[in-house]
Amino acid sequence: MAQRMFDKVALIGIGLIGSSLARVIRREGLAGEIAVATRSPATLARAQELRLGDSYSTHARDAARDADLVIVSVPVGASGQVAAEIAPVLKPGAILTDVGSTKASVVAQMAPHVPDGVHFIPGHPIAGTEHSGPDAGFADLFEGRWCILTPEAGADAQAVERLTKFWQACGSKVDVMDPAHHDMVLAIVSHLPHIIAYNIVGTADDLEYASKSEVIKYSASGFRDFTRLAASDPTMWRDVCLHNKDAILEMLARFSEDLASLQRMIRWGQGDKLFELFTRTRAVRRSIIEAGQDVDAPDFGRHVASHPERS
Amino acid sequence: MAQRMFDKVALIGIGLIGSSLARVIRREGLAGEIAVATRSPATLARAQELRLGDSYSTHARDAARDADLVIVSVPVGASGQVAAEIAPVLKPGAILTDVGSTKASVVAQMAPHVPDGVHFIPGHPIAGTEHSGPDAGFADLFEGRWCILTPEAGADAQAVERLTKFWQACGSKVDVMDPAHHDMVLAIVSHLPHIIAYNIVGTADDLEYASKSEVIKYSASGFRDFTRLAASDPTMWRDVCLHNKDAILEMLARFSEDLASLQRMIRWGQGDKLFELFTRTRAVRRSIIEAGQDVDAPDFGRHVASHPERS
Repeated sequence: MAQRMFDKVALIGIGLIGSSLARVIRREGLAGEIAVATRSPATLARAQELRLGDSYSTHARDAARDADLVIVSVPVGASGQVAAEIAPVLKPGAILTDVGSTKASVVAQMAPHVPDGVHFIPGHPIAGTEHSGPDAGFADLFEGRWCILTPEAGADAQAVERLTKFWQACGSKVDVMDPAHHDMVLAIVSHLPHIIAYNIVGTADDLEYASKSEVIKYSASGFRDFTRLAASDPTMWRDVCLHNKDAILEMLARFSEDLASLQRMIRWGQGDKLFELFTRTRAVRRSIIEAGQDVDAPDFGRHVASHPERS
Repeated sequence: MAQRMFDKVALIGIGLIGSSLARVIRREGLAGEIAVATRSPATLARAQELRLGDSYSTHARDAARDADLVIVSVPVGASGQVAAEIAPVLKPGAILTDVGSTKASVVAQMAPHVPDGVHFIPGHPIAGTEHSGPDAGFADLFEGRWCILTPEAGADAQAVERLTKFWQACGSKVDVMDPAHHDMVLAIVSHLPHIIAYNIVGTADDLEYASKSEVIKYSASGFRDFTRLAASDPTMWRDVCLHNKDAILEMLARFSEDLASLQRMIRWGQGDKLFELFTRTRAVRRSIIEAGQDVDAPDFGRHVASHPERS
């Protein structure tokens, strides 16, 4: 167990990420007190049943008061509103951070509300599953994953160091970069894949050539992989699309350009070019597995998950 | 253990599918003799080391001679050549089938060579992983998955029934349809997902905004899912693209049309429309899980695969 790092941590939002933080903070003993806030009374009641915190409120301000670390884990479109609500009670010296999937927009929304003496250090843990809500979280979620911090130029170095150590205690590795670079990188590694997955599942769902039952029955031939990302939280992903628009439109343009080129190879029967592309992409997966960012088991280890007794 | 169904089964091609068949045929005792043929001496030697068969040859004709069931498991572009090679030795009453991902092209390539009295019943097991070669196969590959047969009108009903029972003994459920319908359905559930995955991995690999190391490090945010399909066998997928061209071009056109519409929603900030699409796609995954075609565990159960001791 790591040692206590903060007397009071406030978790604003208690979905997949917030509730995973609650669990790992508890397991590692990183906080004296965990204060949980969420606007939904039903979600709050569930968080209480799961014993995720020490105090509970539907008002972010109640949780943030006197907290040494405030972690905002809400859809990125709601960040500004949360910052405005909690600003008056933030303690001097406190660290304010978030876990949002876009960073420039979060900075634009939250920074204007942050009082002097409070250290605002935006963050983004690169971890998640397609499930959402307080039941979906688990303490190991951040293990071996990266967390990106995007402190402003001139941010307090000690505060950045404390937050870095916090995420490391949660199991993460930490990188620091500026918000614009974060948004461009995440547009390709995360936002584009989700948008493409939503799109292909939509295309298949609309199709009149194949019945819905056929699409479901034969989905193990590839389609099912996309349905996982396309099952992610709609509110979160609507907000990502609206709040990282420019970078996403840039990546969509590149993707479509490349797809037109690939389509042309298929139309004109350019087998050698297809073979060259299909070989190059294979190497990328190998690198991801070598970097410990995916399992080496075939088919994502689904076989193991279905039959754990045989592993 | 099921009972012996064939005296001699010939496996032409001993990659992922062929070697999985060898393993399940042996485990279930479905054949008196398994004859293995592959053109590559290295692959054949490996198959022999793995004891996948009872006899081995680099000539398909040696394996097919006297076989009661001949299963051709080669890239679809090679089907015609294999059919021409084995035709002279096929036994009257034998069943000739294949496992190719496209069916109209396979029928066009193989049917002209099939001698009278031999039952040609094309097939396609909807199962696989991103790995290839004789080491990649496993006996459970077909368990709970569908296998599609596309017999010609007027095919011998008893032979279709025997082949159906064979696939059922391998763990599959069996559907029958015509080749053109198969090719259209598979274009959406399998071919389009693979092509899109290859494309997005190519786009990311080309990107100058993000370093390759960043793409790898942060891939757990979505991208890594696509790299699995994009790591599939390049020869197999080149052939699929070349041999199901019309259906694939049709699906690509629909996909791109839908993507342009989604891109427009993002550009114009149409949050309600995005939310509606992202909600509809969530239901599709639920149906796939309910149909037993994917694991219910979050993140495809990767967490279980990484830490089987905790399951």
